Amino acid sequence: MRIDPSVQLGKQVDIGYNVIIEEDVIIGDYVSIGEHSIIRKGTLIGNHVQIGEFVLLGKSPSSNNKMARKPTVQLPPLEIEAEAKIGTHVTLYRGSVIGKHSFIADYVSVREQVTIGEHTIIGRHVMVEPNTKIGAKTTIQTGSYITADTLIEDHVFIGPCCSMSNDKYMASGKGIHTGPIIKTGTKIGNHATLLPNIEIGPNSTIGAGAVVTKHIPAHTTYVGNPAKPLK
Amino acid sequence: MRIDPSVQLGKQVDIGYNVIIEEDVIIGDYVSIGEHSIIRKGTLIGNHVQIGEFVLLGKSPSSNNKMARKPTVQLPPLEIEAEAKIGTHVTLYRGSVIGKHSFIADYVSVREQVTIGEHTIIGRHVMVEPNTKIGAKTTIQTGSYITADTLIEDHVFIGPCCSMSNDKYMASGKGIHTGPIIKTGTKIGNHATLLPNIEIGPNSTIGAGAVVTKHIPAHTTYVGNPAKPLK
Amino acid sequence: MRIDPSVQLGKQVDIGYNVIIEEDVIIGDYVSIGEHSIIRKGTLIGNHVQIGEFVLLGKSPSSNNKMARKPTVQLPPLEIEAEAKIGTHVTLYRGSVIGKHSFIADYVSVREQVTIGEHTIIGRHVMVEPNTKIGAKTTIQTGSYITADTLIEDHVFIGPCCSMSNDKYMASGKGIHTGPIIKTGTKIGNHATLLPNIEIGPNSTIGAGAVVTKHIPAHTTYVGNPAKPLK
Repeated sequence: MRIDPSVQLGKQVDIGYNVIIEEDVIIGDYVSIGEHSIIRKGTLIGNHVQIGEFVLLGKSPSSNNKMARKPTVQLPPLEIEAEAKIGTHVTLYRGSVIGKHSFIADYVSVREQVTIGEHTIIGRHVMVEPNTKIGAKTTIQTGSYITADTLIEDHVFIGPCCSMSNDKYMASGKGIHTGPIIKTGTKIGNHATLLPNIEIGPNSTIGAGAVVTKHIPAHTTYVGNPAKPLK
Repeated sequence: MRIDPSVQLGKQVDIGYNVIIEEDVIIGDYVSIGEHSIIRKGTLIGNHVQIGEFVLLGKSPSSNNKMARKPTVQLPPLEIEAEAKIGTHVTLYRGSVIGKHSFIADYVSVREQVTIGEHTIIGRHVMVEPNTKIGAKTTIQTGSYITADTLIEDHVFIGPCCSMSNDKYMASGKGIHTGPIIKTGTKIGNHATLLPNIEIGPNSTIGAGAVVTKHIPAHTTYVGNPAKPLK
Repeated sequence: MRIDPSVQLGKQVDIGYNVIIEEDVIIGDYVSIGEHSIIRKGTLIGNHVQIGEFVLLGKSPSSNNKMARKPTVQLPPLEIEAEAKIGTHVTLYRGSVIGKHSFIADYVSVREQVTIGEHTIIGRHVMVEPNTKIGAKTTIQTGSYITADTLIEDHVFIGPCCSMSNDKYMASGKGIHTGPIIKTGTKIGNHATLLPNIEIGPNSTIGAGAVVTKHIPAHTTYVGNPAKPLK
């Protein structure tokens, strides 16, 4: 174990074997941290948060010269609100906020400047890109990919293994990067594909395996490739 | 290293640096365990099993209030049968059985109450949900997602990055959750999508990228979205 | 920390807590290695390389009896060229070469006998199978799957969550295994599916969610399932 003397620990914090906690981390009461996990400097962890094994919290983004999106110079620390549960082998970047009572499953990877709402479930192996907002009481199932610059509202259901993108011109340097907007109450079936810059719903349904190429009106059901209204 | 005194170790067990083994674990002869791996209490490991690095064995399921599937109060320990090989960064939950001579590749995540048959290969990054049975001499290739309540029989081939689902109404609380039934000898192409509650095969073939929306008869080939018989 | 006495360390190498470095590893100047990472014997690491946490470098392939592809008896060590950046929870196998200034993101898994070109970006959770060549200044986005025996040239863009395969007969033992050939400047949209033994491009565009079943001519755009020329 290697815990910096500046770390503030609440009551009854359970810290596993070989955990590393860097300077100025603040940990609430009744928190548990699994073995071998690493908490980077300044991370804020609320009461009753549970953290799994082999977890990396508060990673700073890196980049190479070819990347469009350069890391912001100064990101605030990662914040994990009370009662959240974090699985094993998870990586959460600096500059994001994980909401109260949320559930972040094993192998989830959340980049910087992401907000995850209260009571939301992020399934195993889900990948969330930067600058994205996911609402409250939303479920994103196992293996789905949430692109950068996406807005997902409350009470949304995204099935397993969905994909989306935010760059119509695929790294040509043309156009603006904009992920989809997924409105309240919308449900998206497993393995669906969403194109950039479309709005879906509210309360619409997208069938499994559909390829959504344009805006989807509220309260409708679309299926197929390209997605068309269900007859 | 932190090994509980109650652990039963067979002959010539090779335990890596920083491994953690909890109480009442039973390990057979000639087992190897990679560095930093964690074996939770009661896990049973057969002879000649090879376990990689950063592995978590015998994890107990967690949940939050919004989840339909609450963890079973009492799960039996994880059991890994003789000659199985487990890759790196793997997580296997309590209450599952990993068959003899099976191969569980890197980053695989298998939830509770799953049975994996003998000589079966589970590719890298494959995610298996709870209460699922995978037969013998079956291959599930890299990146595929196996939903909960699924039955996969023997000699099945599932290509890379396939997806399936078990809830027609997508978390609306209606209907019964039932994953697909994939019969003996069936082959499923890469990136196929399976809807809930369908039966495929035996000995049928599903094309790459197909979206399977209904039962598929034995000895047939289906392709497209939605999948139709190959002309 | 456990560093073999035979390891050659350059100037100002920053080695994290609990890192393991095996015999005959050669590490250049100004390299950093994150906590808990493991570097297997003989691995070569160039100057200014940055390596994340929970990383496994130089893994030797394993197999079971049922696998078509047996590990090569003697693989050269893994080589990571100067200025490359390796994320967290990454696994790179022995016998591969990671090019200068490349960026290998979190959770990436690269098998043996793979070459990754200079200034190339491999996104998070990308899985690369053996015997594959990826060119220079190419981007493979998050969650994509690169099958074995694939050739990807320079300046290619592969969107997130794409899939491909290399075995038309799906493990029947018939035919030759050949992944796709993706020519210079080609762009592939998110969640596209590629069948075995096809050539795409150069400078062609594949739409998001397309299923590519045959050769795609240069400078064309194909969309749909099966993919057809865009009208």
